[in-house]
Amino acid sequence: MTFEVLVNVSLRPGIADPQGATIERALPALGFAGVADVRVGKSIAFTVEADDEGAALATVQDLCHRFLTNPVIEDSTVSITPAATPVS
Amino acid sequence: MTFEVLVNVSLRPGIADPQGATIERALPALGFAGVADVRVGKSIAFTVEADDEGAALATVQDLCHRFLTNPVIEDSTVSITPAATPVS
Repeated sequence: MTFEVLVNVSLRPGIADPQGATIERALPALGFAGVADVRVGKSIAFTVEADDEGAALATVQDLCHRFLTNPVIEDSTVSITPAATPVS
Repeated sequence: MTFEVLVNVSLRPGIADPQGATIERALPALGFAGVADVRVGKSIAFTVEADDEGAALATVQDLCHRFLTNPVIEDSTVSITPAATPVS
């Protein structure tokens, strides 16, 4: 079975985020008031082949921990949905 | 009212994604088979003050179009949730 996966990698709370701070500082000059707490992260979308959703989740979490994130400074959230299969 | 916003910026279909291709090429050597269609994007989380969810969404979509994305090569998806308000 094929699953569609979206991994959202964000800096952990307390880790400095200069990119987010720069966006936040620029917004009032562009006319956007009331925007705060800007944090910039990465999103990684892919498909994975697995027997079931549990196996897919285990693979993706291993992948996140070993390769996609730096667990010292980054958190990740994973969302998995079964891919729409074409009717054969 | 405060809303929590997560904007997911991804490259449009057909736009080359060398970062995603590099991840995809590296995975088999690390023991992850069956991962395909890797696309890397940005995620931007922030809070916005607005009267209601419709106004928040309008602000965020304007922000996405003018500042957070390059609409020529990037798509964005927006999710908005009311922030948990502390009981006063």
